[in-house]
Formats: sequence, structure tokens, C-alpha cells
Amino acid sequence: MLVSPPAIELLAIGNELLLGETVDTNSAWIAQRLAREGIAVARKTTVGDDVALIRDALSAALRRARTVVCTGGLGPTVDDLTRHAVAELYGRRIVVDESWIEVLRERYRRRGIEMPAINRVQGEVPEGARALPNPRGTAPAIVIEDDDLGMTVLLPGVPSEMRGFMEGEIVPLLCERLRPAAPIAIRLIRTTGISEAAVAERVADIAADTAPVDLAFLPDTCGVDIRLSAASDAAALRRLDALAAALRERIGAAVYADGPLDLAAVVGKLLRARRCTVALAESCTGGLLGKRLTDTPGASDYVQTGFITYSNQAKHALLGVSAATLAAHGAVSGECAREMAAGARLRGGADLGVAITGIAGPGGGTEEKPVGTTWIAVAAGGGTTARRFVFPGDRGEVRERAAQAALDMLRRHLLDAHD
Amino acid sequence: MLVSPPAIELLAIGNELLLGETVDTNSAWIAQRLAREGIAVARKTTVGDDVALIRDALSAALRRARTVVCTGGLGPTVDDLTRHAVAELYGRRIVVDESWIEVLRERYRRRGIEMPAINRVQGEVPEGARALPNPRGTAPAIVIEDDDLGMTVLLPGVPSEMRGFMEGEIVPLLCERLRPAAPIAIRLIRTTGISEAAVAERVADIAADTAPVDLAFLPDTCGVDIRLSAASDAAALRRLDALAAALRERIGAAVYADGPLDLAAVVGKLLRARRCTVALAESCTGGLLGKRLTDTPGASDYVQTGFITYSNQAKHALLGVSAATLAAHGAVSGECAREMAAGARLRGGADLGVAITGIAGPGGGTEEKPVGTTWIAVAAGGGTTARRFVFPGDRGEVRERAAQAALDMLRRHLLDAHD
Repeated sequence: MLVSPPAIELLAIGNELLLGETVDTNSAWIAQRLAREGIAVARKTTVGDDVALIRDALSAALRRARTVVCTGGLGPTVDDLTRHAVAELYGRRIVVDESWIEVLRERYRRRGIEMPAINRVQGEVPEGARALPNPRGTAPAIVIEDDDLGMTVLLPGVPSEMRGFMEGEIVPLLCERLRPAAPIAIRLIRTTGISEAAVAERVADIAADTAPVDLAFLPDTCGVDIRLSAASDAAALRRLDALAAALRERIGAAVYADGPLDLAAVVGKLLRARRCTVALAESCTGGLLGKRLTDTPGASDYVQTGFITYSNQAKHALLGVSAATLAAHGAVSGECAREMAAGARLRGGADLGVAITGIAGPGGGTEEKPVGTTWIAVAAGGGTTARRFVFPGDRGEVRERAAQAALDMLRRHLLDAHD
Repeated sequence: MLVSPPAIELLAIGNELLLGETVDTNSAWIAQRLAREGIAVARKTTVGDDVALIRDALSAALRRARTVVCTGGLGPTVDDLTRHAVAELYGRRIVVDESWIEVLRERYRRRGIEMPAINRVQGEVPEGARALPNPRGTAPAIVIEDDDLGMTVLLPGVPSEMRGFMEGEIVPLLCERLRPAAPIAIRLIRTTGISEAAVAERVADIAADTAPVDLAFLPDTCGVDIRLSAASDAAALRRLDALAAALRERIGAAVYADGPLDLAAVVGKLLRARRCTVALAESCTGGLLGKRLTDTPGASDYVQTGFITYSNQAKHALLGVSAATLAAHGAVSGECAREMAAGARLRGGADLGVAITGIAGPGGGTEEKPVGTTWIAVAAGGGTTARRFVFPGDRGEVRERAAQAALDMLRRHLLDAHD
């Protein structure tokens, strides 16, 4: 077990979170950011827009953790009740911070528009609380504290505003208050193309005894991550790195990253290091492979061109896939994938071509080519390789797995061609 | 306020959720699915992989709600402790369901491989609990109940497996147990291209009194949704529909959907209804627009072709953007966007061409063209329209907003051209 780091609790507020219309990405971001400082999140709770429920959940969280970060419910509309619940719990009345209203009014003035009157609500704070100005939006962050209850931080639910406050004032404030001894050290080993059970079995003897390091297997649609974590004292760090090295060696080529790097970023680094460019040809993924490769800034060094060829006609006209191939083998075939990859490489003027053609579903499957059937090809100067996959899952998952598998084929090609 | 529907609580289990490495999408999906049946989620709690913490959080949730659905911690590895925590709380010992082990063994046999021994753990269930076979994975779902504590449902954390169980056995089980009177009726009005404060001000008088209907504004990166919800008795439903109609009329053209439809799906429907095809030309979004349009099954009826032209060279070679335009105005200009859209339309053989060219950041901005500056153009037989935007946010947000704005320009073009 880890030496316990200081911990806070998170409270996410909003009916939209309980109705499932919004996925709470804020809590994950905050947890990840605080882990880097050595502050743990002991628990996350989500409640709806209701003064009594917010007050009671916050009260319970403060009793357990003494420090709570809340997100959401700070907007200007009638359903935004967080300030009121907090004021009730801390026994304060609501006052208006006129200086903040003036800042907002001036901002609107500069854009040549009158401030919507509704924004006056954004100046409301519990008496004695601190309102931190928001450069990205209209709701200030609010920090309130007393000796009895502890400290509550209120952040807007809009992710960019929440992140701005965390990076600005809140992370330093929490560090000063909680004085974390050292960051929690984490090693992440990312794998793709291998199942959780297969990874676990391959490393079973190593995983059987990892103390004082915690080990976890984290499967998701695109692969299995292994996370090692420990307090960052010297002995634990040595053990952590030794375990990470042993796991990497045992798992082999399915490991694509040490640390929280996306596979597309790993492939981008390899392409840049090899001074290679790649042209894309996407059918069922419809642009997802291009989107992933260009998530990384500077991707223009290695991706200049992509072709989204959703129809047979486009495969023929844009990539030169032959009518005979399409007639004899169909668009979802090794032959078609090869011609697509070769065509993209040639017509995109790139060193490599990568093609994806498959049946993402839900319709279009046959007994011979069920939904999920996907051919991926990589074309290089020395020839073209194609591989068949049958990906499980719904349309979205098949497309995600196909883009991931294409990136992985590209990664393995780049490693094999040069190592 | 709503007439209170029967409610459950959700408990998500996993250190990866508290370390922020995994975003919990399961809870949102479950909440949305149950809302359709008239079952509310009163609270969501997330705890780590620790028997005592899981047991205590589950115990508190059962005391409040009597019915709890847990996700995660059912895998075959050492950090999967949910079964043990539940067995402890209910005072049962762990037994092995040999029939399930046999099913797994047979499954592996058919694929010609030996079952990893580690999968024996997947047969472990608290005595007297029901194990439901998992067609998509190795962990069964587990249902356990007693008169004292109430009912707990354990589901695997892998989203496709969780969803399979919910759609199969669990939703009917919960409906039978909780006997929801009627689904919670929801009307969702989706807008884009207008701020939360501007929407709220425009509809302020309508929003001031909506009883017995609940109203909420839900802003996110790509727009502002308005959600109306009410118990589904006849009077409330009439009021709900009258309010929705009034809001739609007041907000006008910024409303793109009634209900949980993605803008790309709305545009797809319009394209299909108009028998129009569209060709895409993407620079900074790198394929994201294509990905979004092809998220919808059947998109091949209206998107056949897209060009990802990340470099100036590709814009020239693939789309025919003139060297003079690139030299005089740069790639992020109205002129370039127009030539890209016209080139995509012509070379893709489509009725319409849509182009996006912008500076997604973090680098590349200048005083004249700051990060976020994006030109979007729509080319049609009758001419080409281009519009300049400066999107706020980080690289990912700028790209998301650019794709959304391009879809919205396309939507407005399709409406104007035909209505």
C-alpha cells in the first residue's frame, strides 16, 4: 500500500450529470492534476441542483476530508444553486461583489455590447468568501473557509474555466494548505493489440508481489494500460522503475508508451525521428485516423495529406483503386486496402501510405464479412502489408479500434524498418 | 419540482477513476438509460479499489436508496476487489460458480487456445448471489439482495459489457423492482453559435416561471442545450411542449435539434432530404469534420469524399488552391477557404464543398491572426460563402468548435437554400 498522501474530496454538481446528459470530465482532470502534486482524491460525489442535497453532500465530504473542491452550479441561471447551498452550510448571507460586476460590464463595453443584466448574479458570493476573477468566463471561483468545517473551493463547470483556475490559484492554494510530502510517483505502461487476461497472465509472476508498489490493469477500448504507483521515496522509486522495466520486457512489442502518451503521439514522434511523411486513406473511419494524428501540435511535419474515400467511386477516382478489384473482392478486402494505401502514398507524395476499409456497422455485415471486419494496409517503398481484423463493439468502438490498429501497424512498421 | 420518481444510486469503483486516468462514462450512460424508464439516479459516488471503502460507500448508498448499481472492480486481477467488499457487507462467503468457468473454458477451446488460469477468479461470487453470464467478456454480472440491506447489482466496468447487461437483464430487473410510474419526460433544445448568457437573456421571461416543469441551461464547448423535464402526466406534458415551442421560437435559427441529436446527424438528415452530397476539405481539423459526419450509419449516402490538406502543398495539389492566393493571403484566409471549398466540391464531384482552415494552436498565432482564427467556407453551385471565426480554448477545443461551426454553416446553407 501507498503511504497515504493528503486527500481531498470532489463534489460535482448538476442535474445534467445525474441525468447522464453530460459526462463529468472535470473530476478526472482535477484528480490527475492533483496526483502530480501528491494530493489524492479520496472520493468523488455527484449530486443534482438542489440546495439541501448539495449542502448535505458537501457537509459529509468536509467531515471526512476537511477540504473539498466543487465544480458546477455557478452559472447565471436559476438552476445554479451552489453558492446558496454553500452559504447556508457555512451560515453566511449572500453579498454582491460590485468590483467583479464592474469588470464584467467593462468587458462587454469593449466588445461594444451591453452586459446582459442576468450577469449580475455572477457577483453574488457568500459573505467573507474570496471571489477569484475569471479571465475566461463570467463566474468567479469562490474560496470559503472556517475552522469548524474546513475549506471549500467552488469552480465553474466549464472545463476550460475550471482548468484555468486550477492552474492559476487553486493548485498552489491546495499545496500550501495540505503540504503534500512528495508527488505520488506513477509509471504507466501502455499496450495495444493484446487482451487484459493475456497481459495479466504473461506478467503474473511479476504482478504477484509488487509491494510497496501498487499495480493496476486498466483495460479500455483501445488497449490495456498497466499503472504502477508508489510514494516517491528513493527506495520505492527504485523498485518502481525495476518493476516497470521487467513488465516492459516481458510484454514486448505490444508496449507502445511509457507514460500518458497517446499512440498517435508516439507514432508522430517516430515519423519525425525517421523524417518520414504519411498519407492517409480512410473509408469506415471517415477522418478519425487523420483527426488522431493531427491532435498533436506540429503534426504538419509528417501528415500533409489524407483522403476520405467513403464510396467505391471515390476510392477509384481519388486513390486509383481498380474497378476490377472492387468488383472481384469488394471494398472491404485486402486487395482494396493495399491499393488504397499505395494510391494514397503515391498521390499524396508521401513516404508511407496507410489505409483503413471496414464494416463499422450496425448494418452491412454478412456471414463471410461480419460487422467489425476491417482491412488495414501500410504501403512503403519496399512493398505493402495488409492485415485483417474483426473488431468487437458498436459502430463507434469498431471505428476507434480500427484507427488504433492502423496507428499500431504504422508504429510496428516504423520500428521494424529501422531497428 | 418534479414528482419524485423512484431513485437508485450509482457506485463507480476503481483507483483509475480517482487518479483521473479514466473518465467515468458508464455512470452517464446508465443514468440516461434509466431516465428513459422513469428511474432517477439520486447520487453517484466514486471510490478506489479498497475493500473497506467500497463496503462503506455501498452501505451508505443502500441506506439512502435501497437499490445500488456498481460498476468496475470485477476483473480477474488482484486489484479487483468489488466481489469481496460486497460479500463482506452482505455477510456471505465467496463460492465458485463452476458452470461459468466451464463456459469460459469452452469459449477458449473453440478459439484453439487454453484458458488463462487467472480467469478462474471470474467464477467467484458471494454465496446466494446470482451470476449472469457475460456474452462479451469474462466477468459475469452479479445480483445480490436481502431484506435488510436491499439490492446491489455489480456490473463490469468495460462499457460494452456494462451496456450489454443493462439492455439485457438489468433494466427489466430494476423496472420490476422499482415500478416506475412513467418515464421522466424530457425535451432537449440544442443551440450552437450563441452564448449561455445571450440565450438566457433572450428567453428570460419564459424561464422565469416554468412550474411544474424544470428548466436547465447546459453549456458545453459546442453550444448551449436547454433541458426541460417533468413528470409525464397529461397536464405536465402539455405545459412541457408549450414551453419547448415558445423557447424554440424565441431562440430562432440557433436551434439545431429537438432531442438528443448531434449536429452532424441533423446535417446528415438535411443532406439526405435534399439529395445533396458534400465533399470536405480540412486543414486544422485534420479529419474531425469527416469523422463527425460519418459517426452516423448510412453517411455514405451524402459524404463520399474528403481531403485532409494539412500542408500548403496539399492544398495546391489536391484542391487546386492557387499559389498566388497562398502567397498573398496565407493558408488561413477567406480566399484560401473559398478555393479549398470550391476545389473539394469540384474534385470530389459533390453538390457542396465545405472547407476549414485555421490556427488550432498552441503555436502559430500572430497579432493579426491569433490562435483560434479560423476561416470556414461553403461552396455551392450558386457561389461560395466564407466566414471568419476566432475560437477560444485550447487546441482540442478550437478544433471541436471549428468542426461544429462548419456543420452549422452547412446546416444554415441547406435551410436557406430550400426553405
